[in-house]
Amino acid sequence: MDYQALVEEAFSAAETYRGRGTVASYIPALARVNPSKLGVAIALADGTTHCAGDAKEPFSIQSISKVFTLGLALGHVKAALWNHVGREPSGSPFNSIVQLEAEKGKPRNPLINAGAIVVCDQLMGRRPADEVVDEILGFMRRQSSEDVAIDGEVAESESKAGTLNRSLAYFLAAFGNVQNPVEEVLSVYFRQCAIAMSCCQLARAGLYLAFDGKDPVTGAEVVIPSRARRINALMMTCGHYDNSGEFAFSIGLPGKSGVGGGILTIVPGIGTIVVWSPGLNAAGTSLAGAVALERIVERTGWSVFR
Amino acid sequence: MDYQALVEEAFSAAETYRGRGTVASYIPALARVNPSKLGVAIALADGTTHCAGDAKEPFSIQSISKVFTLGLALGHVKAALWNHVGREPSGSPFNSIVQLEAEKGKPRNPLINAGAIVVCDQLMGRRPADEVVDEILGFMRRQSSEDVAIDGEVAESESKAGTLNRSLAYFLAAFGNVQNPVEEVLSVYFRQCAIAMSCCQLARAGLYLAFDGKDPVTGAEVVIPSRARRINALMMTCGHYDNSGEFAFSIGLPGKSGVGGGILTIVPGIGTIVVWSPGLNAAGTSLAGAVALERIVERTGWSVFR
Amino acid sequence: MDYQALVEEAFSAAETYRGRGTVASYIPALARVNPSKLGVAIALADGTTHCAGDAKEPFSIQSISKVFTLGLALGHVKAALWNHVGREPSGSPFNSIVQLEAEKGKPRNPLINAGAIVVCDQLMGRRPADEVVDEILGFMRRQSSEDVAIDGEVAESESKAGTLNRSLAYFLAAFGNVQNPVEEVLSVYFRQCAIAMSCCQLARAGLYLAFDGKDPVTGAEVVIPSRARRINALMMTCGHYDNSGEFAFSIGLPGKSGVGGGILTIVPGIGTIVVWSPGLNAAGTSLAGAVALERIVERTGWSVFR
Amino acid sequence: MDYQALVEEAFSAAETYRGRGTVASYIPALARVNPSKLGVAIALADGTTHCAGDAKEPFSIQSISKVFTLGLALGHVKAALWNHVGREPSGSPFNSIVQLEAEKGKPRNPLINAGAIVVCDQLMGRRPADEVVDEILGFMRRQSSEDVAIDGEVAESESKAGTLNRSLAYFLAAFGNVQNPVEEVLSVYFRQCAIAMSCCQLARAGLYLAFDGKDPVTGAEVVIPSRARRINALMMTCGHYDNSGEFAFSIGLPGKSGVGGGILTIVPGIGTIVVWSPGLNAAGTSLAGAVALERIVERTGWSVFR
Repeated sequence: MDYQALVEEAFSAAETYRGRGTVASYIPALARVNPSKLGVAIALADGTTHCAGDAKEPFSIQSISKVFTLGLALGHVKAALWNHVGREPSGSPFNSIVQLEAEKGKPRNPLINAGAIVVCDQLMGRRPADEVVDEILGFMRRQSSEDVAIDGEVAESESKAGTLNRSLAYFLAAFGNVQNPVEEVLSVYFRQCAIAMSCCQLARAGLYLAFDGKDPVTGAEVVIPSRARRINALMMTCGHYDNSGEFAFSIGLPGKSGVGGGILTIVPGIGTIVVWSPGLNAAGTSLAGAVALERIVERTGWSVFR
Repeated sequence: MDYQALVEEAFSAAETYRGRGTVASYIPALARVNPSKLGVAIALADGTTHCAGDAKEPFSIQSISKVFTLGLALGHVKAALWNHVGREPSGSPFNSIVQLEAEKGKPRNPLINAGAIVVCDQLMGRRPADEVVDEILGFMRRQSSEDVAIDGEVAESESKAGTLNRSLAYFLAAFGNVQNPVEEVLSVYFRQCAIAMSCCQLARAGLYLAFDGKDPVTGAEVVIPSRARRINALMMTCGHYDNSGEFAFSIGLPGKSGVGGGILTIVPGIGTIVVWSPGLNAAGTSLAGAVALERIVERTGWSVFR
Repeated sequence: MDYQALVEEAFSAAETYRGRGTVASYIPALARVNPSKLGVAIALADGTTHCAGDAKEPFSIQSISKVFTLGLALGHVKAALWNHVGREPSGSPFNSIVQLEAEKGKPRNPLINAGAIVVCDQLMGRRPADEVVDEILGFMRRQSSEDVAIDGEVAESESKAGTLNRSLAYFLAAFGNVQNPVEEVLSVYFRQCAIAMSCCQLARAGLYLAFDGKDPVTGAEVVIPSRARRINALMMTCGHYDNSGEFAFSIGLPGKSGVGGGILTIVPGIGTIVVWSPGLNAAGTSLAGAVALERIVERTGWSVFR
Repeated sequence: MDYQALVEEAFSAAETYRGRGTVASYIPALARVNPSKLGVAIALADGTTHCAGDAKEPFSIQSISKVFTLGLALGHVKAALWNHVGREPSGSPFNSIVQLEAEKGKPRNPLINAGAIVVCDQLMGRRPADEVVDEILGFMRRQSSEDVAIDGEVAESESKAGTLNRSLAYFLAAFGNVQNPVEEVLSVYFRQCAIAMSCCQLARAGLYLAFDGKDPVTGAEVVIPSRARRINALMMTCGHYDNSGEFAFSIGLPGKSGVGGGILTIVPGIGTIVVWSPGLNAAGTSLAGAVALERIVERTGWSVFR
């Protein structure tokens, strides 16, 4: 298969959808991103990446970071994490607080905001926020084999504008499900969301999830096999909030979307696909990105369900 | 791989769990099933089935039938079905009415009770209930290559005891989402749930879902490929009500459970697994059955996520 | 005070609002009521009634009937009624099923539909539906000192169109909170809602609630004093569904509205006010009726809160 | 009537219930209050107060303060307050966040925590927190004709332990329904809850609500008549969270309870009753206090519903 032609075809298919949808506007730094950006990247077992469009331009990975910190937290606290966060789809938007009340402060899964805040808290242990952020950044650099940085302006405005996430965090704390000071935990959470990476970097970084936890290039075991499968399972059932069923239905691959317009998709045994375009659909998933993705799975027949 | 040894090992592993959990007791015909029944069956591409324990004894397939009628309804009304029922996990128990009110009578997905009632109504078109039940039975006979019957006693007591499903159906009707007379639709619904099949029969019948919609033995296209994948996707995200995330997490395969204690599991490209044991966990999934299933995926490494 | 002038002033004040709002249209018999009808009546301790506009024309009293059957049921089963239905405002629309699920089939209060269905069931004991309807009609005739009838066409179409109430009733039955056959209970419920009375008749019939349970004209104790106060309390907190707080806030008197456009209001120690106009506001309360009521309380200063 | 004998009889009736129920324990300062405290006070039109038990000992008035700040805020912003907070019972516990999400940050009423936080914010205008707290304290001193203070230890621990209220406040802010800095608003809220007053002082302070807004002793108009009635209406429908219907049903008077164990009750045209005992029932209302109250209304026949 000519993968370079594939990413270019996907780019072309999605091109007319660029600029459609709504760019996240809750912080100025996201609001002023050029809405017509569109990047498509595929990374394969041998570490090669095929890129089209704006695939080399860094963007705010936002909630896609949740997939990586989940793996790190599981490495630290193992299955004890599941005492603090569930594994079920929520059937609700990413920032819903409703189930949290009924379920006494235990978030439905680690890929909604409340769950990811709990994951940050668990990942911290008793360490200071900066040390934890360094661990996350170090991990992303190692997996992408490139320098990766936090967009300081985004991180700062996330914190300023983050009243809803702040509310979620205090709510969790009210139920005793945050062990560190709330503002410390939020400081980790807001910074992980503000990591800036390109489609190509992100595709490379996620490769271990397609190969049972092992980096196919270096051969290093990044997470144990069962953990990689389970992270994929969570991406499949919970990776897109109340649009997760739809994504499984139409794309058929584990994925995680971010409000910055990126989507990381895992093709088990083959590689990863990352698309990016800032315009979002009503469920907060990149609109043009989804079109590019659909074209790729259509052409390749990639699906975990066949 | 020695599949016969595999099903026997799975049976042995689950044996000590027989009788644990709670047998469905809302109708006498289900309540008096011997709780220590345990069957395990695997069907493969060549049509061979490997069976252990009570795998040849018919049981009430209950909600597992929803997977097959969904395929039939999609054959009749195509994508128009999705105007009447969604594709998202509900995050709620199988018989919850809460979301139905907020979402104006459109059930979250076709695998919860309300959704399956809508599927029955759509499958009927304007046909009488008996004709539709004949179509369903005919399909199950064809796919299992065996005689398959409805347990009349179960069907009758389902209807008598089915006040909650009756409530759901009238609720759907109140929102205009049932086109046939409510009692007619329920008559189809209750009878499809009362179909009696053995693990072996059910494993054989579901085989086409593991092979992109094509029966691997006869070569016949039972459903088109994209439809087979999508049914698998729905089983993955919604097949076990508010336990779906857990099943994806621990088993990693598309599956559908029934309150009679059966679980149909699809292994794409390889075959199907059916387990049966009447004792249920809190989420309504067979307890010993899940243990047998876990052993099989552990031994084989079967998972769509690697 | 010149009460005749008062009701006429209230009529005039509300006149320009006649025809505004939405006439209940779920059954043809209600939908074709002339939307510009407007009646105002006040009944006083000596039994005199002052009437304006269409106050002598019978209309479908609908949910106002719930107040009277509540008193009858309490007479039969006493405080045991409260094992089956609560006494709290629901904060939800009249026909919401959501709380019923969380609260396991015990309706929040007897003035929402689900609660009134339970009241009917309790009032029935083990008696046939017709006998119970006769008791209700007999009571209304006695209290209004006039002939009162059920509008047969309304009753029949209520039953036909009543899929939502039917759903509620089966839901209650699923939780064991209906002891008689569901359709029998509904037959009482639909007929009590279809009672036709005029403003004047209804004002006269409700008089005992303003005088601690005693009919001020005949001196007969209709309900015991504490029961009368408690029915008034329920009308105050729950009489207008999710508009009850608003009614207490702006009118300051116990009241009960019906979807037919009537409102019965109790002025403790003084008498009753009944208004009728078919156009409803978003919460299902008569729009012009509320204007007439506001004028009366403004002029008289009637309020339980001063 | 011998009011002194009345309060003493009420005290005796409730005495055996002292110490039952649960003392609020979320902050140490409340947790270590002697659970067997019990005070009963009645204030009358001429300003006399009749006191029994611990009625002269100051306690933390907590949510009872909401009634007074509501009046103050209405004085400042008038009906514009109702753009920010509703007037309907919530049907939910005092600190529920669920409806806030569905209703986009507009609390159901001013007597639940979220609503009272909004009231504080509106009362502030753009003034600093300390100035607003001074206004509240000045008002309480004027109305009780005594010195009234904030319990600094309670205020401080409220703030420290107040993660749930902090979560509510940030949630409101996320919907743009808090205009001042969240921590400033909370500083007012936590201090108003920490006001310490005795039953006698509180009974005297609330007297204007029983006399259409006019202080019956000084003759001063504290709030305009319609506002007094409306505050009473809100106390009736919303004064006890999801126990409001029950209180209206059994006591029949407008009231407001606090988690410190106090209950302020208004007897329109006659006076006020204040009871205090720290042990709470499941709905957060003083258990022994309610017994004392029941005895008083039983003896006097006081009820707005007759």
